[in-house]
This record gives sequence, C-alpha cells and structure tokens, in this order.
Amino acid sequence: MKNSSARILVINCGSSSLKFEVFAMPERKSLGRGQVERIGKDDGHLEQCSVNGVIDRTEPIADHSAAVQLMLEALVDPKNGILHDLSEITGVGHRVVHGGEKYSQSVRIDEKVATAIEECIELAPLHNPVNLTGIQRSQEALPGVPQVAVFDTAFHQTLAPSAFLYGLPREFYDKYKIRRYGFHGTSHRYVAGEATRFMKRHPDNTNLIVCHLGNGASITAISSGKSVDTSMGFTPLEGLVMGTRSGDIDPAILFYLTERGYTERELNTILNKKSGLLGLSGISNDLRDIEAAAEAGNKNAIEALEVYAHKIRHYIGAYAANIVRTDILVFTGGIGQFGTRMRERICTRLENLGFVIDHRKNLENGSSAGIISKEYSPTAIVVMPTNEELQIAIDTYELL
Amino acid sequence: MKNSSARILVINCGSSSLKFEVFAMPERKSLGRGQVERIGKDDGHLEQCSVNGVIDRTEPIADHSAAVQLMLEALVDPKNGILHDLSEITGVGHRVVHGGEKYSQSVRIDEKVATAIEECIELAPLHNPVNLTGIQRSQEALPGVPQVAVFDTAFHQTLAPSAFLYGLPREFYDKYKIRRYGFHGTSHRYVAGEATRFMKRHPDNTNLIVCHLGNGASITAISSGKSVDTSMGFTPLEGLVMGTRSGDIDPAILFYLTERGYTERELNTILNKKSGLLGLSGISNDLRDIEAAAEAGNKNAIEALEVYAHKIRHYIGAYAANIVRTDILVFTGGIGQFGTRMRERICTRLENLGFVIDHRKNLENGSSAGIISKEYSPTAIVVMPTNEELQIAIDTYELL
Repeated sequence: MKNSSARILVINCGSSSLKFEVFAMPERKSLGRGQVERIGKDDGHLEQCSVNGVIDRTEPIADHSAAVQLMLEALVDPKNGILHDLSEITGVGHRVVHGGEKYSQSVRIDEKVATAIEECIELAPLHNPVNLTGIQRSQEALPGVPQVAVFDTAFHQTLAPSAFLYGLPREFYDKYKIRRYGFHGTSHRYVAGEATRFMKRHPDNTNLIVCHLGNGASITAISSGKSVDTSMGFTPLEGLVMGTRSGDIDPAILFYLTERGYTERELNTILNKKSGLLGLSGISNDLRDIEAAAEAGNKNAIEALEVYAHKIRHYIGAYAANIVRTDILVFTGGIGQFGTRMRERICTRLENLGFVIDHRKNLENGSSAGIISKEYSPTAIVVMPTNEELQIAIDTYELL
Repeated sequence: MKNSSARILVINCGSSSLKFEVFAMPERKSLGRGQVERIGKDDGHLEQCSVNGVIDRTEPIADHSAAVQLMLEALVDPKNGILHDLSEITGVGHRVVHGGEKYSQSVRIDEKVATAIEECIELAPLHNPVNLTGIQRSQEALPGVPQVAVFDTAFHQTLAPSAFLYGLPREFYDKYKIRRYGFHGTSHRYVAGEATRFMKRHPDNTNLIVCHLGNGASITAISSGKSVDTSMGFTPLEGLVMGTRSGDIDPAILFYLTERGYTERELNTILNKKSGLLGLSGISNDLRDIEAAAEAGNKNAIEALEVYAHKIRHYIGAYAANIVRTDILVFTGGIGQFGTRMRERICTRLENLGFVIDHRKNLENGSSAGIISKEYSPTAIVVMPTNEELQIAIDTYELL
C-alpha cells in the first residue's frame, strides 16, 4: 500500500529562478506553492502562498543553493508555512531539462543519474547545472528522502530516427549527439493524458496534436500515448514563432548576418531574446499587447499575429500528415488557454483537414477544460490547462 | 500576329556552368541544346547536341564571357550547328536566380532591369553576377535582339507576409530584406500549369502542391495559379533534405558547432555540400545509390531515406493545412519523376489527408506525365516532367 498521506515537494530550477509546490498525494491536492526570483541579485525575491498565509521577502540571494535554503525556511515558516516540519516530505520531484538519450521516463535519483545529468550539461548549459544544484541541496537538507528526476526531454525519446535526425552529416549525431530532443515533454504528456481522459478515449487508440503555446511554444504529435514528432529540436529555439524566440529560420540567414558583422553571441541573443512576437511586432512578447495594437491598426502587429498563426497551422498540418489520423487537437499554455482569438485565427482554415472550430464554444471555453469544436468535427478540439508540477508530483509519488 | 517561326535562345548560367537550348516558337520545339562546364578550369568542356550532330570540345575556358563566346560559335558551327546564322535568333531568355522583391514575373531586359539584377547580387552572390555576364555578352553579340529575364524567385512573390516573414526582428526585413523568397519558381510554375491542363481543370479553381525533387528540392503550394507557400527560403538551403543540403535545422546547432571550433565558412560548406542525403547516408547524394545500399541492409542508408520522406510528408501536410483543399499533388524533378519507391514511401501514410497512391500505376508511370493515384483519391497524384528551359522560351516569346 502506498502512503495515503504523502507530501511531495516539486522543485523547478530555472536559470535565475526556483519554483516549488507541495502536493498531497494521491489526492493530487496542492497544499501551497512559491517561487524565488532574481537569484544572484541584490533584490532577490521569494513569494510563497498557501491557505496558511503569504510570505513575501526581498533580500540578496547569492545563488541557487541560497534559494533552496530560503525555500526550505519558508516551507516550515511557523506562521505562514506550508508544512509543520520538513520530515513530513515523503519525496522530492525535480524538473530536469535535459536527459539526453539516457532517460525516456522519470527516474529515482542515485549517483548514476546525477552523473548522467552532469554529462548532459553541454546540451543544456543554462539549466542542467542549476537542476543539479537543486537536487544536491535538497538531498543534503532531506537526507533519506527519495528524490526523483522528471526530464523535459524524456517524453520525446520515443521519436523515430526519421523524426529526430537532421539532414546533417551522420557524425554530428554519432559524435556530438546533435538530434531533435524536444522539450516541454512533461506538459505535453500531462495534457495529452488529461485530454484523452476528458474525451473518454483509450490512450492506445488515440492520436493527438498538442499545442503548448506559452512564452515558449511547441507542438507535439502523440500516437498511442507516445510522442512521435515535436517542433522544438536540438534546443528550444526551433519550431514555432514564440514570445521572443524566432523558431524556424533559413540557417543561411546566420551566415548572411555574420558577414554583415554580427557576432555569434549577438545572433544567439537576438534569436532567443529579441525575435518572435516581440521582434516581429516591435511592441511586446505578450499576445494581448499585440492583439490590442493590431486592433488599433498597427501593421507590424497584424503581421506578427498572422505569422504566428501560419506557423502553428503549418505544424498542425505537418503532424496530421505524420500521424495518419488526428482524434484530438489540444490547446494549452497561456496563449493556448486564454488566446481565444488566436485559437480561432489558427483553426478557421483547417476545416478541410477535419478541424472544425465552433465560434461560440471557443468564446465560452478557456480557463478550464472544454471542447471548442463543432459536434460534427472529425477531430475534437479541446482546451486543457497544463500542470507540469502536478505531473512531476504524480511521477514522484509513483516511483516511491 | 506573332512571328510564327521565332527562334528563342535560352541561357542558364550557373556558378561554373552555362546551359543553353534553342526553341522554335510557338511550336515549343527544341532544336538543340548544349552545356559548357568547368568554366574557369583548364579542362573546360562544351557539349552540344542537335539533329545536325554533336559537338564535344575540351579546352581552357577562362570565364563566363569565354563560355558565351564558345556557345555562340557552336550554335552556328558550319557542320554540327543548330542555326545557320545568329541573326535567326529572335529573342534570348535568361534564367536569373534572384529578382528580389522587384520582379513578380518575367521581364524584357533594359538598363533598369540590369541594374536591379545587379542590386540583388548580395542576395545571390554566386549566381546573379554570372547571370549578368550572360546577359551582357549576349546583348553585345546579338545587338537589337530582345533579351528577357526569367527569375527563379518571381513566381513566389505572391506569398503573403504570413508566409514570407521569419520570426525575426522586423528590421531584418526592412533593412536587409531578409525574408522567404523561394526558388525553383520557373519549374514550379511550369509543372503546375502542365498538371492543371493534364487534369483538365481551370487554374482559377485548382489548388496544387508541387514537389520538385532533384539534387536541389523544394515544395510549393499553389492556389489559383499563385504560389502561396514554398519550402526554400531566404536561400535555397532551407526546407527539404536535399542531395547535399541539410534543409531545415535548429539554428542553434550552428552556435553549438561554432563553440566547438567550426568556422562560419566550414559550416556553410558542410550545410550546403556535405549534408542532406550524402551526409546522412555517408554514401552518395544519388538516391539510387542509397536505395541500393538500403536494400543491402545499410542502416544509415535506410534512415537517410526515411528522414528524406518524413520531411516531404511534413511539408505536404503543412501545405495541405494552408491551402484548405488540395486538388493535385505533383511530383517532378529527377527523384520526383524516377524515384518510384520514394514516391510510394512518401505517400503511403497520407491516405487520411486524401492522398491515395495506386501501387500499380505508380510503378507504371514515371518518365512521362501520368496519374499515380487511385480513382477514388480525393487528391489526384500526378507525375509531371519539368522543363524550365521551355518555360523560359515561352515567357520570352510572349514578351516579344
């Protein structure tokens, strides 16, 4: 029998942030959550929120080790804490960005796993090191408590070579492991599972296309519960037009710009931080700002929205061609969930492929799960909130 | 009345070659053709072939000017020439690679057009200069004979901003004209026209997806006779996996390889000359060699074929999503025309999108125009030989 009152702590270390949440399992109930931001700055900030109260602290936070320490203090804060004592924690689930080709599912962390995460640092130089720090510090603070790694890339390890190999010299894969890895795997997996259940289908017999549209964005084709293709690639830069990332471009553009004096470092920054919706519109990386500007007649904003939708349609069609039949098209992520007009913009030309949106249902549904397609639409179109933290807690609980 | 016995000379200057052909118009009859190769080398080579005989010369050819001179001599060779006298030539049609955003159709060459071609040199540094040389030398040799420019990019100038803009900072388009131009336009236009006539349809009411699969390869979506999307982009590097070109990759792969010591020049060469089918298979850029190796069980060859087909299906699906309804799917180019097994490999998973190949018809058709889909297939699948030179002659004749 599994412990019926397990407390799972979920930790998600980003390059300058740390998000955490505590779940009661198997009830899947969030007991509270928080985040540490501006790690490495003098005005570092922790915020935590639960039924017991809110904690809000601004102080210098040197590094991720300090951030973990701060989180642990907040968790058991005598007044506003989420737990009475750290000993209540039965397991810790860590989001780890890159598991390379080693991990196709979540795994309990031991020496070997830690080494593998370290070996993947060159594939995710900004993320895997801080993920490792999060793991090491919580191992020290919670000795004996099982720690689980949930990889962003794991879900996509089922891709066939036809989908994961680039048209590059073979040795780039053999030697440098350059291939499509895909990201957002935990979100795609969670949302696909929820949408399948919501539609009362059996996963073995269901094909889905999941559009995770947040500030980062990716699309995944899922067949019988397995990822068969995904738009992010070797890094999270490839694929859709995103908030500030370019997505797909002609690689020769980089050669052209290099000849015009741009350095590799500048181009890396431009493609990751100054492109996408922000770059195209010149206004913002926030869809709402751009939609407002478009409504006021701003040409660049209008075109940014069209480019954004065009690319999503491109991938929906591409994946429809590769999974033979699409049963459910799912929208999730901030834009997927709340971008009502964007969903309509994307779907209004997809009727002939079997995606028939219902204008009224699309307006009515959004923040919670709902069907937004016509009853006669061959493919059901569904809005489904994502919850990576919950999926990490579920994986962790199941591995205890 | 148009001249009923016009002779049109078509000139296609590549970076180190010059192809030419003479047509009788309006009969659309080829009177002979030839090519000059290894321009700039000591063992330059001219070959010309017509009913009058064959010319085969090997000698140093200094540059494209010398190549034009050699061609003119061969054309009126007393014994094996195609023409009695250069004065028979009523018009010259030149393939020009890049017309930038200036030209959306073929145009008679005057001072202004020549300047525009020159202005586009930075967009096509290997091709536009030799195209210009070809134009200038034939203007000098054939004074008073109208010269026409037929641009590779012109057909794709109908793309909407949603299809031609990259997710890059807006100023890259405004300042550097970085956008999707697309290439192979003359081939796509010719083949789309022929396939539409072949299927006895009216172009205004026809949507096509044309797969031009040669050593270079691109796919174009055509609606009412207009290109609405195409897989090659700012340069011919983007899109499909080709003979030696990578096609789409995660742009961050270039940053990754730069950090590992590759120079921009090396990467440019690798992506253009050592990637694609050649790079993946490690065997050859020729599909037949790879198919033979795959049959013998070579794993890299098998995967190269699968990656190649996967990417084509990706674009067929993507374009099906963007043109609402596909009436005709066309295969052309060396692989499109003769790659029987590859066509089957591509189409066998596309039934649900309405592309139903007929195994027997696919085996029977190839070298000439033919339908290879089942009678009940919602989309007709057609093999259609391309003929860029003829299209250039038609354009030239029509502009006289």
